[in-house]
Amino acid sequence: MQTGPRPADFADVRATNLAVVLRYVRANAPCSRADIAASTGLNKATVSSLVADLIERRLLREIGLTEHRIGRPATMLVLDGSPYAAIGLEVNADYLTAVGIDLAGTQLLSWRRSFTGLTASPSKAVATIASLARRAVTRVNKEGRQVLGLTVGVPGLVDPEGTVRLAPNLDWRDIDLRDRLVKALGAPDYPVAIENEANLAAVAAYRYGPHAGTANLVYLTGEVGIGAGVIIDGRLVRGGRGFAGEIGHVQVDPTGPKCACGRRGCLEAVASIAALVRRVSPESVADGPLTDYEPEVEEVVRRAGAAEPAVLEALTDLGRHLGNAASILANLLNPEVVILGGYFVPLAPWILPSAEAELAARAIAPDAGGGRLAVSELALDAAAIGAAARVLDTVDAGELPEPSS
Amino acid sequence: MQTGPRPADFADVRATNLAVVLRYVRANAPCSRADIAASTGLNKATVSSLVADLIERRLLREIGLTEHRIGRPATMLVLDGSPYAAIGLEVNADYLTAVGIDLAGTQLLSWRRSFTGLTASPSKAVATIASLARRAVTRVNKEGRQVLGLTVGVPGLVDPEGTVRLAPNLDWRDIDLRDRLVKALGAPDYPVAIENEANLAAVAAYRYGPHAGTANLVYLTGEVGIGAGVIIDGRLVRGGRGFAGEIGHVQVDPTGPKCACGRRGCLEAVASIAALVRRVSPESVADGPLTDYEPEVEEVVRRAGAAEPAVLEALTDLGRHLGNAASILANLLNPEVVILGGYFVPLAPWILPSAEAELAARAIAPDAGGGRLAVSELALDAAAIGAAARVLDTVDAGELPEPSS
Repeated sequence: MQTGPRPADFADVRATNLAVVLRYVRANAPCSRADIAASTGLNKATVSSLVADLIERRLLREIGLTEHRIGRPATMLVLDGSPYAAIGLEVNADYLTAVGIDLAGTQLLSWRRSFTGLTASPSKAVATIASLARRAVTRVNKEGRQVLGLTVGVPGLVDPEGTVRLAPNLDWRDIDLRDRLVKALGAPDYPVAIENEANLAAVAAYRYGPHAGTANLVYLTGEVGIGAGVIIDGRLVRGGRGFAGEIGHVQVDPTGPKCACGRRGCLEAVASIAALVRRVSPESVADGPLTDYEPEVEEVVRRAGAAEPAVLEALTDLGRHLGNAASILANLLNPEVVILGGYFVPLAPWILPSAEAELAARAIAPDAGGGRLAVSELALDAAAIGAAARVLDTVDAGELPEPSS
Repeated sequence: MQTGPRPADFADVRATNLAVVLRYVRANAPCSRADIAASTGLNKATVSSLVADLIERRLLREIGLTEHRIGRPATMLVLDGSPYAAIGLEVNADYLTAVGIDLAGTQLLSWRRSFTGLTASPSKAVATIASLARRAVTRVNKEGRQVLGLTVGVPGLVDPEGTVRLAPNLDWRDIDLRDRLVKALGAPDYPVAIENEANLAAVAAYRYGPHAGTANLVYLTGEVGIGAGVIIDGRLVRGGRGFAGEIGHVQVDPTGPKCACGRRGCLEAVASIAALVRRVSPESVADGPLTDYEPEVEEVVRRAGAAEPAVLEALTDLGRHLGNAASILANLLNPEVVILGGYFVPLAPWILPSAEAELAARAIAPDAGGGRLAVSELALDAAAIGAAARVLDTVDAGELPEPSS
């Protein structure tokens, strides 16, 4: 029943070591071959051979000699981002985002367009997503880059085959998004993957910014819904069927309002942006669900800045519910940090105090052992950046693009 | 910031492949060298050399030829459990358990003794634990076995140094159990480790019995407290500081009774055995906390069997709270199964129906995607078996004992 580690052979050794060198340069560039050998424990001849291979694959390049060093001047190496690109898309109830990044992590494009996820039919939605993906691919191809992969983040349950089993805020059920996109894109020569958007935001936070490399972290998306992306021991948690991270439908208030999922008092029903706007600006949703929350959030920030009591109270309550949710994460998973993303970022000054107090009161581990809250620096792009980064993960894991002529 | 995979070398390749062969034989014994080669993809000469090494280390042995096969008779291999043993201890509020197992998974000893964890001083408790460990080690040594390691499971927060930071049901805070035990045992030549007991029960369930090899599972211990051991993608989840799995202190009933931890409505305060006995047999705890719950549980089972309405209602409520907790796990982690252990096992007939209904109602993933509940077959030995199995994990991972002369 148990599946053991698969056997290793010498090709694996080389792939592993190519990835080790690539990741070392990603973290430490510019650096010399001698630096790599000294830090990784690989011998210098091996490092030279590995570096030559990575230069041939156009993953590394030399940037000339440096003399500001002890000992002989050395040829310095950096990542060569130029020949490749990864594309990430994020689908939300009220907007689509597209991001392109190169292998060095440089952002090549960052587009945002409004999207009526809830009101469009799934077929229409797929056509819109495919159209944005096609434009992003065309753009980076025009710059002479090869697309290594496209990942699309979706706010819902995504199974391992890339079918969206349930996305309440898009009103999607059993939409075979991966197959439809591959078809719409004309069976492209790069891989297409679908992933839960909170998972991708967590991947982005694990790879970039102040929490990069934090082995145990949770990213809470603050959108029309709320999702959790969970990294444990440096690995993304998907769960048995890929449905992990649905913190939005954990009950935090048994007497709370009804949720879009049909249950009562879900985190999403009391702490999402949709719930906040319903509470503090009921007139704005009188004519049906909003298709763009950004202006509403700006208005909430303005009213909170003006210290409007009803708004401050609503934000304090929202923070309390978030802190409760963070304490469940702290007690169950003991992450080092829970990162608040999306619309929680501009609202942070008013929600963090009650959130932090609630987390401290409810976490069983003493002191900072129960984890802490932080505010994302990736904001609304997080999932799209993570979607693109997901492609780079495969490269860092040793699946290197073949050298092109 | 990010730590990459460490470089691989040829010694790693051999260690990896020794572990692959060992795990293959564990899963498939008796089997031949040709079976191993065919299933692992390793070539026959390599398999022969690896098997020779494992036989020399007395990890495998030959059991003669078998002819009931297609083709030539082959020499069959099985695990050689005889020269080694792993010792596991479990500390509970009301009892201690000791288990010894050999490398083939055969149980060598299984002892249980009553223990007054809550009333004894920590020093007295450590002396009692050390004494039981010493007896177990002496027993397996007398049988000519080398002890590969001792692991002790504790119901509380254990940090990476083996200090119990907090164990409310033992009234322990910052007890450096590992250091104290190593001292009490006279600095033994085998490694001593301390681990959360729910984590160890999960390890046991992942290694033995009907859920062996289930990559995503949660084990809920049902003792004086309630803990969760979480396996994700085949790996035990410890969290950033080792404090994961504290589901006992997640609030499931805001209007519920006060918990030993000082908070209100924790799962443990409404669904532990202690809570159940307080509710259905208040007279038994009138003189202070119990030191042995086993007779009380037998009495509850008897009364439930006689369909006493108050007991049935209490068990239905307990099941509902457990199902709620399982739904939080299902929504956050999407395990394939949540296994109920400890005293929940004899109570299962009366708690499972409401637990399953609550899980189904609260899990967001459709159908069986939200996971299912199961009853442990390891019962009260689970953590001790897991403690011993933890030692075997290091062997399976490639840390092989050296051949003795």
